[in-house]
Amino acid sequence: MDTAAGTDARKNEARQWFETLRDRICAAFEALEDELSGEPLTLAGGGPAGRFERTAWTRDGADGPDPDSGPDSGGGGGGGGDSGGGGGGGVMSLMRGRVFEKVGVNVSTVYGEFSENFRDQIPGASEDPRFWASGISLVAHMRSPKIPAVHMNTRHIVTTKSWFGGGADLTPTAPDDADTAAFHAALKAACDAHDPAYYQRFKEWCDRYFYLPHRNEPRGVGGLFYDRLNDGWDNTFAFTRAVGEALLEVYPAIVRRHLGETWTAAERERQLVRRGRYVEFNLLYDRGTKFGLMTGGNVEAILMSLPPEVRWP
Amino acid sequence: MDTAAGTDARKNEARQWFETLRDRICAAFEALEDELSGEPLTLAGGGPAGRFERTAWTRDGADGPDPDSGPDSGGGGGGGGDSGGGGGGGVMSLMRGRVFEKVGVNVSTVYGEFSENFRDQIPGASEDPRFWASGISLVAHMRSPKIPAVHMNTRHIVTTKSWFGGGADLTPTAPDDADTAAFHAALKAACDAHDPAYYQRFKEWCDRYFYLPHRNEPRGVGGLFYDRLNDGWDNTFAFTRAVGEALLEVYPAIVRRHLGETWTAAERERQLVRRGRYVEFNLLYDRGTKFGLMTGGNVEAILMSLPPEVRWP
Repeated sequence: MDTAAGTDARKNEARQWFETLRDRICAAFEALEDELSGEPLTLAGGGPAGRFERTAWTRDGADGPDPDSGPDSGGGGGGGGDSGGGGGGGVMSLMRGRVFEKVGVNVSTVYGEFSENFRDQIPGASEDPRFWASGISLVAHMRSPKIPAVHMNTRHIVTTKSWFGGGADLTPTAPDDADTAAFHAALKAACDAHDPAYYQRFKEWCDRYFYLPHRNEPRGVGGLFYDRLNDGWDNTFAFTRAVGEALLEVYPAIVRRHLGETWTAAERERQLVRRGRYVEFNLLYDRGTKFGLMTGGNVEAILMSLPPEVRWP
Repeated sequence: MDTAAGTDARKNEARQWFETLRDRICAAFEALEDELSGEPLTLAGGGPAGRFERTAWTRDGADGPDPDSGPDSGGGGGGGGDSGGGGGGGVMSLMRGRVFEKVGVNVSTVYGEFSENFRDQIPGASEDPRFWASGISLVAHMRSPKIPAVHMNTRHIVTTKSWFGGGADLTPTAPDDADTAAFHAALKAACDAHDPAYYQRFKEWCDRYFYLPHRNEPRGVGGLFYDRLNDGWDNTFAFTRAVGEALLEVYPAIVRRHLGETWTAAERERQLVRRGRYVEFNLLYDRGTKFGLMTGGNVEAILMSLPPEVRWP
């Protein structure tokens, strides 16, 4: 294994970042739960402010997870496969609140060996099938149809090579120009600080990825998607942190803009139908979801991305 | 084309059967809508008896549909593909009622040529890529969690060979032994009149097909699944009619057994969660759904099988 790529210090640094980011995201979202009041609180059911509940899971020695697992894989990784070796696990953080109808923030750190089928497809794995992977995955479905759903996922993979991947995208019931502009501006700033070419490249990749060909519809209003990126470990890790920081800054701001707004039953209905498209995408197309389920990943973590209530009227 | 296999008389006979069966099913289901009264009617929202609405669609010359398209394909068939030739279409019958929360009964009759990719996989298509396919597809999601969802699909395919395929299965919120027994008895009788080996063989095929490996769960309590069957055209067509007759007899009887029963919010919640498994199966595994969507089939007809309201809590 390439010493420079896979030092324990770097792995620890990445894992600790994902876990710290998880803690900060959970705290920021719980703070939003506390802020709801007035008529929106009544519309949301009037319940108490939500709090995250954490559930740890461990991964038995198994086939490797897809290191390029798609952004909606819930951080479930592999597990329960049929080859020996490897392990690790993760923690699911789930909140069912009054602002966040259902939000999952998963972190996982897993290691093992890729089965022969996968080695050729994974950078650096044909030389040595061992891998290590750590990441964070966030999917939030909101009670208010005025507040867009959001997804963010970043991960670090180490074989004999090492790289980062991830992204973030926004899925409103009906696009709101100010929200879309704010979201893209935050991600663009994160990109531009590292490479002037990143934003356009990763924005277009996101638009291609989060698309429902059977409906000729994008899943949402886009964001970023990047994978197998290593423009120097320090730089790429810094960029990956910047994507997380951008999400942490811009999404709560978007939520706050709409926290005082009420909504109608018709708007709620449109939200539930829109969520059907989200389900269609995740189950029909999302690579991480499909791969994770097919290879015995942690089902609860993988499917935490599915919306709490959906309609196909 | 094999004259015996593909005579217009036989095609017409099959198509007419599927359309007649559709009419009889719709009439039987509308009658059930009329019968609801008392507290179950109040629980169901107290609306008027539902009536089917029909929407015709036409298929542009296109790649062939999967002639073995799975039972949940909604009869959407192919369409909108990239090769010329062929056509046909179908009629979607959709009812949103007070007993039937959402029920679709689709018939379609389509023809064309298989693209080169498919010819090797389809009986009789490597000699001559032309095909003709006609079928009926029914999926019913019920308001009452006491009444199981049901699916039935039968089809006739003609290439240089000809065959029938289809099946029926029951998906309760919680299994009810009497319902399960009645459903299987009706299907067994339909089988036994034609071949004593059919029931066991097609029941086991159904159990294998309607299974969610990622959850180690069957989708429901089973039924029948058969495909590429031709034990003599007359006999196999008669068997296919018998499957339709069995559904028409047993399912309304099952519905009537529960029509006077009330239900709790907790039972309704379990039903909505159970429906999530139905969605997972159809989008992750069902061959017809996936194939139809990937090849430009009629999206509305294909996805009519998705439940009207679903929860992943």
